[in-house]
Order: sequence, then C-alpha cells, then structure tokens
Amino acid sequence: MQTTAATTAEEACFEAGIKFGTLYHQFAGTPVSPASASTLEDAIADAIENQPHCEAVSVTVRTDRLETALAEQSAEYTELTGKFFDVTMQIEYNGCRVQTQMTMDGDYPLMEIVAVESPTDDSS
Amino acid sequence: MQTTAATTAEEACFEAGIKFGTLYHQFAGTPVSPASASTLEDAIADAIENQPHCEAVSVTVRTDRLETALAEQSAEYTELTGKFFDVTMQIEYNGCRVQTQMTMDGDYPLMEIVAVESPTDDSS
Amino acid sequence: MQTTAATTAEEACFEAGIKFGTLYHQFAGTPVSPASASTLEDAIADAIENQPHCEAVSVTVRTDRLETALAEQSAEYTELTGKFFDVTMQIEYNGCRVQTQMTMDGDYPLMEIVAVESPTDDSS
Amino acid sequence: MQTTAATTAEEACFEAGIKFGTLYHQFAGTPVSPASASTLEDAIADAIENQPHCEAVSVTVRTDRLETALAEQSAEYTELTGKFFDVTMQIEYNGCRVQTQMTMDGDYPLMEIVAVESPTDDSS
Repeated sequence: MQTTAATTAEEACFEAGIKFGTLYHQFAGTPVSPASASTLEDAIADAIENQPHCEAVSVTVRTDRLETALAEQSAEYTELTGKFFDVTMQIEYNGCRVQTQMTMDGDYPLMEIVAVESPTDDSS
Repeated sequence: MQTTAATTAEEACFEAGIKFGTLYHQFAGTPVSPASASTLEDAIADAIENQPHCEAVSVTVRTDRLETALAEQSAEYTELTGKFFDVTMQIEYNGCRVQTQMTMDGDYPLMEIVAVESPTDDSS
Repeated sequence: MQTTAATTAEEACFEAGIKFGTLYHQFAGTPVSPASASTLEDAIADAIENQPHCEAVSVTVRTDRLETALAEQSAEYTELTGKFFDVTMQIEYNGCRVQTQMTMDGDYPLMEIVAVESPTDDSS
Repeated sequence: MQTTAATTAEEACFEAGIKFGTLYHQFAGTPVSPASASTLEDAIADAIENQPHCEAVSVTVRTDRLETALAEQSAEYTELTGKFFDVTMQIEYNGCRVQTQMTMDGDYPLMEIVAVESPTDDSS
C-alpha cells in the first residue's frame, strides 16, 4: 500500500459525496405528495447549492411513482425516500469539475460519479 | 389522579404538537442563506400541510437574523435552527381548531398553543 | 365556537405531540440493520428524554420486520421508518400525565394518546 | 479540460463524502446533553457502519463544549451541531482505503481526507 494526500480530483469527489449525503439525509422523511413536490424540489436544490463547491443541483420528484405509491396505501401523502426523486449535481473544486447523479439501481437509490473533468495540464 | 380518554380538544392539541415536532426536526440543519430562505419557507409549509388535520402553516425565515449571524462567521450560509424562523399553524380536528405558534422566548424556540376553539355545545 | 386558552391537560397533550414529531422526523431515514438496532433504540430514548416534560420513552426496533424487509431487497440495511419501530412515551406537565404510543395501524404509523391522568381536584 | 471516468481512489473519496454528509445531516438537531452523549455516539457509529464500504466510524461528543454551551443558556439540553462532536472514519473501496475526519476549523466543522492508501501496483 502507498499512502498519499488526496489529489484535487479526489477532493472534488469527496465534496460531491458530502453534498449527496447531506441532500438525502436532510430531506428523507419529509411529508410529500404530488401537490407539494414542486416546492420541495426547489428548496432542496437551493439549500444544497449553499454548500461550498456546489455549482448546480437539479432535483426531480418522481410524481408518477408518488401517485403509484399513494394509490396502494391509506394516507394521502408519504415520506420522501430515494425512489421518489432523481438528482443531478455538479461540483467544482479548484478547477476540477465532477458530474454526479442519483437514480434508482433496481431497488437501491444509487449515488454515482458520471464524469470527472480536470484541466488538461494538471494530471491530479 | 383520575384517568380518562383524551377529549376532542386534547386530541387536537396532540396533533398540533406532532406537526411542530415534525416541522422542526425534519428541517433543522438545512443549509440556509438569505438567498435560499424563500423556497425553504414554501417547502416547509407545503410539506407539513400534507399531514392529517393540518389546515394552514405559515413559515417566516428571519433573514435579518440570518444576516447578523453570517456577518459574524466564516461560511456564507448556516444551518436552520429555531432562532432563524417563526411559524404559525392552524390544526383542525373533529370540529376543534387549535391556533399555535413558534417564536423565540429569550434563547429558546418556544412552541405554544395560542387558542383552542371548540363548538359551543361541545364542552370537550 | 368558543375560544379559550389551553387547559393543563391540553398543554400536556401538545407537549406529547411535540416529542412524537421530534422522535419520528429526527431519526426517520437512519441507516438501520438488526445489528445496529439496539444502540439506536437507546439513543432515541435518551435523546427525547432530554426534552422538557418528557418522563420516559421506550423504543423497540422491530427486528423481525427488519429481517423480513432485508430478505426482500438487495442492500443489507434499510432506512428507519415507522413500520420498523414501536414507541411508548410518558409526558408529565404541571401534574397532568399523558400516556402515548406509536404502533402500526394497518400501513400507517399511528401516534396516539392512550390515557390522560389528571389530579382529581383539578378539572382542567 | 479532459473528461474521464472516476478512478478507484476517486470513487473511494466519493463514498467517504457520502458517509460524512449522511452522518451530519441525519443526526444534526438531535436533542443532546452530557448525560445522553454516550448512547448517541454509539448509535451514530453503528448506523453509519451499515452503509456500503464503511469500515469504521468513531464519534466523540465533546461534552466539555456541551457543558460550556449549557452554562450559557436557559434549557438543560441543546441540539447536536458540528461544534459538539468529532468524527474519524475509514472507508474501503475496491482495495483503496480512505482515512477521514471532521473537526472544528475555527467556527466551521471541516470534513477532510487525511490520507488515501492505494495498492502499490495499482496507480488508479
């Protein structure tokens, strides 16, 4: 094993992960319905964009899946969880840009790095 | 001591309390700045109005207090906590209406019942 | 309609509701498995007992239901939600004691007042 | 700019970030006092260790800082926030190990990568 300090790209990916964990666990559990989906999307995006190095966040509540879930249960709202929203996020850290997304991978809300964009002359 | 089942007004007050605990602990910790205050206010109100017996919720982020706090610290955002927002909420349960509010009482965000309105002929 | 200030029992029920909303929305979403159920039960109870007027909290994570849910999904943990834990709570407010519980009512985690105990000579 | 897929070490750092965001925003806002600090430490560590690729989590509630804060306020508990706890965490992803920590950097709870350990013959 060799031990190193983190590269710029690794730091950028760490920052991206922080934003995803924040986004998910701050808002999971929020009472949500098709009628309240829109204001929740806006608030989540604006809240996370406050965090350092966060260039852009897009949140889409899956009202189609909400409606399916509500049709099968007694209450007229449910709690926000990963299957009910998709996220794309762009992080910028010291010239390195990381594109990320969260979508369902089977039954699991998978957070993943889509691409890492680094300045051409900076291999870190 | 005498033990009784809850009256309609007591149930209404219990429901009001549930909404306040939900509102506070779902959203406390959210990254917030003056620029993101408005969408957060809307999302909190819409989310809590999904819950049973909740007629109306009004949330006011205290951007004046946010600006004061941000001027004294290094980061350009902070975490939502009780001193940064006021709430009024109206609960309706089986004909009984409860008016509630949360405002700062010294250094503590005090949730309280403002008034209980019951049908005249129903003493419970 | 007649409008009144809250009685002692109504205040006690309001306080009970606050604790339930807090408990649920602070901890819903927590990663949980049968192996981590026990420390989570203890932490939830101890955290909520810090709040004013909260005499006793008992939390039981339903590891039987956790195991059933985990057997049907890909990940080896899930997020805490109402179907995975039962709660009983006792609130004491100015001589009035309120017994409460949360258990599943069909598919909905129902928070309810079990009994209100008031001093015999104080009808409020 | 050159665009690449993430390396193993970048994925490991992303996973580390997710765990930190989760830990912070799941538990920030929890009612805490010196008496309840110990069970909260255990529950946070056990909860986060459920997540994929999370080898070890250590949480230390700073009861010294809690006591100082409580001495200056009216309530006998406060809400968990970054200044009241330190964290170290070790992530393991496909043979790459990431050491991380959260401690106060002035007035900001800084989450950071301490070291990245990669297999010697695998430059990714």
